[in-house]
Amino acid sequence: MTLEAIRYRPGSLQILNQRLLPHQSVLEEIRSVQDAYEAIRSMKVSGAPAISIVGCLSLAVELRAGIGGDGLLCFLRKSLAHLASARPTAVNLARAARDLLEFTERESTQRTAEELRESVIGWIEAMLERDVEDNQKMGNYGAQHILSGVPRDSVTVLTHGNTGSLATAGYGTALGVVRSLQALGRLKRVYCTETRPGGEGARLTAHEAASEGLPATLITDSAAAVAMRQRAITAVVVGADRVVANGDTAHQVGTYQLAVSARHHRIPFYVVAPSTSCDLSLRSGRHIVIEERPPLELTSIGGLPCAAPGVEVWNPAFDVTPHQLITGGIITELGVFLPSELQAALTGRLTAL
Amino acid sequence: MTLEAIRYRPGSLQILNQRLLPHQSVLEEIRSVQDAYEAIRSMKVSGAPAISIVGCLSLAVELRAGIGGDGLLCFLRKSLAHLASARPTAVNLARAARDLLEFTERESTQRTAEELRESVIGWIEAMLERDVEDNQKMGNYGAQHILSGVPRDSVTVLTHGNTGSLATAGYGTALGVVRSLQALGRLKRVYCTETRPGGEGARLTAHEAASEGLPATLITDSAAAVAMRQRAITAVVVGADRVVANGDTAHQVGTYQLAVSARHHRIPFYVVAPSTSCDLSLRSGRHIVIEERPPLELTSIGGLPCAAPGVEVWNPAFDVTPHQLITGGIITELGVFLPSELQAALTGRLTAL
Repeated sequence: MTLEAIRYRPGSLQILNQRLLPHQSVLEEIRSVQDAYEAIRSMKVSGAPAISIVGCLSLAVELRAGIGGDGLLCFLRKSLAHLASARPTAVNLARAARDLLEFTERESTQRTAEELRESVIGWIEAMLERDVEDNQKMGNYGAQHILSGVPRDSVTVLTHGNTGSLATAGYGTALGVVRSLQALGRLKRVYCTETRPGGEGARLTAHEAASEGLPATLITDSAAAVAMRQRAITAVVVGADRVVANGDTAHQVGTYQLAVSARHHRIPFYVVAPSTSCDLSLRSGRHIVIEERPPLELTSIGGLPCAAPGVEVWNPAFDVTPHQLITGGIITELGVFLPSELQAALTGRLTAL
Repeated sequence: MTLEAIRYRPGSLQILNQRLLPHQSVLEEIRSVQDAYEAIRSMKVSGAPAISIVGCLSLAVELRAGIGGDGLLCFLRKSLAHLASARPTAVNLARAARDLLEFTERESTQRTAEELRESVIGWIEAMLERDVEDNQKMGNYGAQHILSGVPRDSVTVLTHGNTGSLATAGYGTALGVVRSLQALGRLKRVYCTETRPGGEGARLTAHEAASEGLPATLITDSAAAVAMRQRAITAVVVGADRVVANGDTAHQVGTYQLAVSARHHRIPFYVVAPSTSCDLSLRSGRHIVIEERPPLELTSIGGLPCAAPGVEVWNPAFDVTPHQLITGGIITELGVFLPSELQAALTGRLTAL
């Protein structure tokens, strides 16, 4: 069974509520930009590519329902700024906003209002397909790169966070690489961390891996280093919410700790990020805004209190892994690059945000 | 408010059920060795020193109720072997068993059955007081050692697991050091990790810290490395379930990962362990039996499922931190030692298990 987080038919958008997985599979209708904002903010949809796609598709839904006309550009600007504010660390939606606005401005000089609406809708609806294609390319590039150091054996990888079909339009980024290893018959096992506080690793990644028949083992976030020491991990493979010009990468909190442990154990550490997750406008990770989430995520689980009441909490949702620790490479749809090669590789195809 | 995990009056033993904390404070009566075994096994009581004391006090309760007589030594042997099997990684109960049996054999040559019973009860009942005294000594040694590198400033420490009053007869091991820093007016803040899967850091350590008015902040296990990077952590201070001859230390899973991160950030890493947690009979950490706990601890929280159903789980309760990473020292009631000094420091006072 392949999981589908985003179900879109022209004019109709539904998302699988990730907060209820894996126990309930509930599709929720997204009828407006505000519905999408709230779904992103409350993490009913998560994963940087999925956030971007759901945000943009909510625009397409409103456009198909008749919003726009002469005020189209103004509607897009206001809506995209609002959507991008829901989760500030992931860059994909902000990049899509820039690209979509540029496209719309260019098109608006030569189209009628009705033609313009249609071409904007077309641009947005193509995002789903592009994302899946990019993920498949990354999966193949990543799998080949990991296997290049391992002539014949099967490999064991460790991953963190939620980077599969549920975080993207399909296939996945880091989990896409795992999927490609499996397709090549070379996956021995994938270790998935719980990924507290949201538990996306336990609830989503492990769920998807099990649904796909991948040999997966769930561990606590704390057991990652001992797994590296005892379980012959070939590579660590994670996703990204934003990769900046020098290769520094923001991803779910705990990624930095994994990178430190991987370095200690001399295990290659890979970041899997489509170019839509890259932000060359920032020179280093110091400039990335790191979202802090509510204390309640640590003090309660499923509505039940699980910590001392009233205790002070520090709950950063992401952390930054410095490029020096990304020893395997950054896997993009254009190929696998060292952090120091990324900017040159993307320049020309990708201009600064 | 000082928390009391073990309430003992001659002949009557009650424990605070740690599984229900911090929301319910329920004292449970321990009337027999089997009650103690079950409380230890199910983690109603946890923390290596507390496990040892509760196990032995359950013997005192049965002895005061009339068990023993001519079969005293046999009863002790059988009961202690049973108790020690409840949680195999912590060494304190096994050490106490050895010491108590030696004491009993020695005493038995010169006492009547009734005198022997009394002196065994006396030996056991003295454990509570000894443990608190040892903890206070460790707290002071540890605080002085940490402060020796910091002339005037207050310090920020990070801890993991449950090492306070609830894990001991009182005061605590690693949390005892934190308490001593606070008593000296030099504690700026203590970061407590959640310590999945049991959540002892969130439920117990943070609860105790809040009860005592310590400036405490709860973080996910995954946020420890980013805290080290951004929050000016002076030292990492953890407890131990077993320290072996070369200084290798078993403690709650995640301790190894913290030690790797501390080394990366050049932050001193301390293990706080009374000599009752030291086991010189094992030369290195490779020989420590690491208990694996049920998958359910990862797939359910408070009875609610929180992971993909049926997923494979690896759930080691402990990991081993190699002595090379214990860069601050091992804090015992005899002083603070480098791992390489430990064996010599304890020899003479402490013979192999």
